[in-house]
Amino acid sequence: MFDQIITNVRNNVPLVHAITNYVTVNDCANIVLASGGSPIMADDINEVTDITSIASALVLNMGTLNERTVASMLAAGKQANQCGLPVVLDPVGAGASAFRNKTAFQLLEEIKFSVIKGNISEIKFLAAGEGKTAGVDACEADKVTEENLKRVADFAKAFSKRTGSVIAITGAIDLVADEDHVYAVRNGHLMMSKITGTGCMLSAVTGSYVGANPDNVLKATAAAVCGMGLCGELAYKKLCELHGGTGTYRMLLIDEMSRLNEIMLEEGAKYECL
Amino acid sequence: MFDQIITNVRNNVPLVHAITNYVTVNDCANIVLASGGSPIMADDINEVTDITSIASALVLNMGTLNERTVASMLAAGKQANQCGLPVVLDPVGAGASAFRNKTAFQLLEEIKFSVIKGNISEIKFLAAGEGKTAGVDACEADKVTEENLKRVADFAKAFSKRTGSVIAITGAIDLVADEDHVYAVRNGHLMMSKITGTGCMLSAVTGSYVGANPDNVLKATAAAVCGMGLCGELAYKKLCELHGGTGTYRMLLIDEMSRLNEIMLEEGAKYECL
Amino acid sequence: MFDQIITNVRNNVPLVHAITNYVTVNDCANIVLASGGSPIMADDINEVTDITSIASALVLNMGTLNERTVASMLAAGKQANQCGLPVVLDPVGAGASAFRNKTAFQLLEEIKFSVIKGNISEIKFLAAGEGKTAGVDACEADKVTEENLKRVADFAKAFSKRTGSVIAITGAIDLVADEDHVYAVRNGHLMMSKITGTGCMLSAVTGSYVGANPDNVLKATAAAVCGMGLCGELAYKKLCELHGGTGTYRMLLIDEMSRLNEIMLEEGAKYECL
Repeated sequence: MFDQIITNVRNNVPLVHAITNYVTVNDCANIVLASGGSPIMADDINEVTDITSIASALVLNMGTLNERTVASMLAAGKQANQCGLPVVLDPVGAGASAFRNKTAFQLLEEIKFSVIKGNISEIKFLAAGEGKTAGVDACEADKVTEENLKRVADFAKAFSKRTGSVIAITGAIDLVADEDHVYAVRNGHLMMSKITGTGCMLSAVTGSYVGANPDNVLKATAAAVCGMGLCGELAYKKLCELHGGTGTYRMLLIDEMSRLNEIMLEEGAKYECL
Repeated sequence: MFDQIITNVRNNVPLVHAITNYVTVNDCANIVLASGGSPIMADDINEVTDITSIASALVLNMGTLNERTVASMLAAGKQANQCGLPVVLDPVGAGASAFRNKTAFQLLEEIKFSVIKGNISEIKFLAAGEGKTAGVDACEADKVTEENLKRVADFAKAFSKRTGSVIAITGAIDLVADEDHVYAVRNGHLMMSKITGTGCMLSAVTGSYVGANPDNVLKATAAAVCGMGLCGELAYKKLCELHGGTGTYRMLLIDEMSRLNEIMLEEGAKYECL
Repeated sequence: MFDQIITNVRNNVPLVHAITNYVTVNDCANIVLASGGSPIMADDINEVTDITSIASALVLNMGTLNERTVASMLAAGKQANQCGLPVVLDPVGAGASAFRNKTAFQLLEEIKFSVIKGNISEIKFLAAGEGKTAGVDACEADKVTEENLKRVADFAKAFSKRTGSVIAITGAIDLVADEDHVYAVRNGHLMMSKITGTGCMLSAVTGSYVGANPDNVLKATAAAVCGMGLCGELAYKKLCELHGGTGTYRMLLIDEMSRLNEIMLEEGAKYECL
């Protein structure tokens, strides 16, 4: 189903403007490059609109946010909306502090997002203004399982309808939804939760994919989610051969993204349309 | 001697709130995960107390500090003290600038630390308000050697008594002291000084270990020091097999931490009680 | 031609003060260490002059610059000039926003640089106040080729004469020029553009090399450019044996720098004096 998504990325080399956290920013830059895009990180209020103006996509990631960067996110987001650029939101840790909560709601109110990507706790928090998050990881009680899959899918569709955004909910099972369609994705590996930044990297890759496929945001997002998960599986396979640990795994994950192509994705993607 | 320390970490998955430098923050996050904890980096004054409130430990690292983050460190530290959370101080580069010096003394005055971890120059500077540091590495003239070991041990105990903190002094020989006990640790490898961040990673792992073992801070700190050093040795062994350089070594160090368990630590730890 | 350059670095362990971006800062710190130097990153206005005063070289890198760090760059640069310390400018993304442009020109006006290192778009922008940059990469139309080599060489010499700085222009062919000499360097590998930070790492290594060879800035810069490119080649060779991707390549690049010595450089450097 992903025919031209990756090819478009590798041919068009979308410039991805990311305002993101300083914890995983290097991984995000490297995985955007690995995915076929070109990253540019710039967060000063004096230049974000200039940078957004020359970009193909904007990614706003709420990890390590601060007052200075929140203002920059708002300015860049509005500029992107004005230019018709796709904007991806990664509401890292939404629910974990009053400041993140306020910021998340303000971003949702003032910016139109093409994609909102988070774990179930973060997305539920955004949708409901309630729920709890334990740090930046999804709380145990709030997993997407085979049992609640249908319910969460309906929730994702409803939230997509309300926001006009493609909603990507990550977890053991990932969901990618617009108001009419939901894909359940079963790619990925538990090992991905043992390194920092796999969520951030996914939102960065999503920026790259939607940047090169702005008219096909749902499929581009699903391709990013399947692709990232598939890279996680392939990296784990390689890790076992190398008898490596989590440090090696982080490296292999970017390796696999740098090799990913159309054929591998079609063969390796495990999704169903709910 | 470390019976339950690591098991407690892997079972409890302590949330470690770190306000740290942007140079080594990714390594710190990844090694906290590798150690069995869960990292959260947040440094905005508007949210640090919220984040500290849900954490199991707080780590304050003075690398790349700035006025904004100093205020956040103070707020988070006070909150941690109020919640009874263990707080680890890594006074990176104390002695190198008037600003770091002032900050270090202010942190010491306003916050009660469970652990203070630094190289001998940094710790001497904190204790005496004198001494010199050449950048962020210990000055040559100030090494812990077999000759001055006893003297430095007494100094560490006295500083522990004065501050009420466990004192960890890192170098070729590491010392971990409270006011009554001193462990000399001979784990580690020279190669650890050829990559950035091994000191920061140790303080992050210490946060993880004391976060899961708040009633056993001395042993948890000693376990972190021995464990980190042991990982440095194991990583070097692997490095020789792979004929790698310092880039590979950095990765292997995190690999080894992700594998470390109770048995490996008991067998590999090289410490003596002075 | 590089007889003592690397030996001086490994013997003197120059302290390199870098005010740089948070995307590639860890790679910069690790490659300074790998090159034989000692990195210190500090960017608060309250301490940059203190830190510069104890350093052997200062590197100013404009990636992710912001108002706070621009003020720090100016203060540190002036202090370095006063102390007679070599200063390296990496005008990342000059031309991409009004803020970067203004900052670049202000830095050029207020600070005397020993070395200015950028891609052809960035350097042309600095020299002419015109030209366009697409994000942080050189625009296609603006490559250094065998055809325009002589012309770009003359341009580099003229810009060196005007600024008093050694000019390093990076690309498929690199140029290193003072007002009387130009070296064309044909080291390097295309793979270096597939990871973030190779440009930043080069300016960091240049800081290390000129810091230990302050009286030989032209050759030290040429050595850094050849050395970095050579490491890129050697890393690619190793990458093919390992069947790795871009994640592995990043690691191998630092590995190679940690091994680089005088003899390897003399044998592997591909330069001609134009």
